[in-house]
Amino acid sequence: MNLDRCCIHTITTKPWSLSESVERYAAAGVKGISVWQNAVEGMSHAQAGELIRRSGLDVVSYVRGGFFPHTSQQEREKAIDHNKKLIEEAAALGAPLIVLVCGASPDQPLETSREQIQAGIEAILPLAQQMNVKLAIEPLHPMYAADRSAINTLAQANDLSESIGSPSVGVAVDVYHLWWEPNLEAEIKRCGKNGHLLAYHVCDWKVNTIDMLNDRGLMGEGCIDIKKISRWVDDTGFDGYVEVEIFSNIYWQEDQQHFLNKITQAFQEKV
Amino acid sequence: MNLDRCCIHTITTKPWSLSESVERYAAAGVKGISVWQNAVEGMSHAQAGELIRRSGLDVVSYVRGGFFPHTSQQEREKAIDHNKKLIEEAAALGAPLIVLVCGASPDQPLETSREQIQAGIEAILPLAQQMNVKLAIEPLHPMYAADRSAINTLAQANDLSESIGSPSVGVAVDVYHLWWEPNLEAEIKRCGKNGHLLAYHVCDWKVNTIDMLNDRGLMGEGCIDIKKISRWVDDTGFDGYVEVEIFSNIYWQEDQQHFLNKITQAFQEKV
Repeated sequence: MNLDRCCIHTITTKPWSLSESVERYAAAGVKGISVWQNAVEGMSHAQAGELIRRSGLDVVSYVRGGFFPHTSQQEREKAIDHNKKLIEEAAALGAPLIVLVCGASPDQPLETSREQIQAGIEAILPLAQQMNVKLAIEPLHPMYAADRSAINTLAQANDLSESIGSPSVGVAVDVYHLWWEPNLEAEIKRCGKNGHLLAYHVCDWKVNTIDMLNDRGLMGEGCIDIKKISRWVDDTGFDGYVEVEIFSNIYWQEDQQHFLNKITQAFQEKV
Repeated sequence: MNLDRCCIHTITTKPWSLSESVERYAAAGVKGISVWQNAVEGMSHAQAGELIRRSGLDVVSYVRGGFFPHTSQQEREKAIDHNKKLIEEAAALGAPLIVLVCGASPDQPLETSREQIQAGIEAILPLAQQMNVKLAIEPLHPMYAADRSAINTLAQANDLSESIGSPSVGVAVDVYHLWWEPNLEAEIKRCGKNGHLLAYHVCDWKVNTIDMLNDRGLMGEGCIDIKKISRWVDDTGFDGYVEVEIFSNIYWQEDQQHFLNKITQAFQEKV
């Protein structure tokens, strides 16, 4: 894949500050950046947006909203307020999109969490529309169903986004979470067709994953046929950024410039 | 759940020999045992079967066949031969059922592995019928899709067992692998209705799982609503054994009699 479509999530190079990430990504020929909330430190979101645009990078998405399900009403309302704040931050930053990690609670049925997720998204939708910020439901791998996301397949995410039925709500396709899904090609077609495919994330699944959270692989290092999935995504007409999002205790310990070089090389060869 | 339906997999108390497991399970009021191949040591399968029956326990299943997919034809044939040997061992042991962990290869597409799984099962089916040993396809959690099983949902396992279409082939429902599945209730109904629900396994999913292979929880220790799933299984008319299968580095380090006491208590309270 050509670097012109390459976007990197700030979490991927976690040891770097936002300024350093921006400078290094731009120098490496990367064109987009997805900003994690924790990366905006010591400046306002508007200032962060200016910093990024001055470097020539596009702000691709703001990460991450969601975590709607809770057993208590009060906690659910707090989550909605928090997501509204994130929408305002995204607008100030100039991010066209917020990624939603929907949430789950081990203390209630998944069905209940799924209802609360839909209610949560519908509660923040008017503000998102008003601020011109889209919301991307990101299905997470089933190994996160206990406490991170009750939405675990693209089929579910598509059902949910269709049920909400707004042009401001769609899905994020992440190969790490979805590569195993039986009808993935058809589900990618489905969200592509109705304009709901809002984001596309890449990394790799290491065959011997040693940590369920922070042992994602660089593209080409694992067993995912990323090129095949990229083709499915492109075949829908999607021509947006391809976002590199790698959580890795191993890579975070490396020299980050060295890691960035590996990323841009892998992006061109393996995506 | 009443202990009359309690079966334990020998792997659950891995530090014990088969003789010790048999003696302790029977003394604890457990009624069934599922025998892992590695547990049959220093005796023939026929002798192991006699040992078990003398104690009053039923042999519920022999674990585990499968691992059909390989990139080389020669390796696939070796896998089929190995599974045929397992069928003969199961028959000698007096086990009515073999559990199939179907396998996967990170070096080929999941679709290819799925075809090879079906071909493998069909290749061993005549011998299984002749020996009166049933084959239970066990879908494994998607986190094992790289190298352990390309069958990751009950929906897929049901599709496969229906496609093979033999009364000797069905599915094993394990709450650990399937608790997150969106249409689980409907899929349990589906296999129950056509007589394909051959086995039911329990343990629990710990919210903070620290090892993807060997950190399963005791029933009640995690977030799975086991009673709900047990009700779905029973509602199909299934009245077979409920099999406790726990892989746990933590519990294997405990005194195994102490662990067994916890199991029988949890079985009565949480299943």
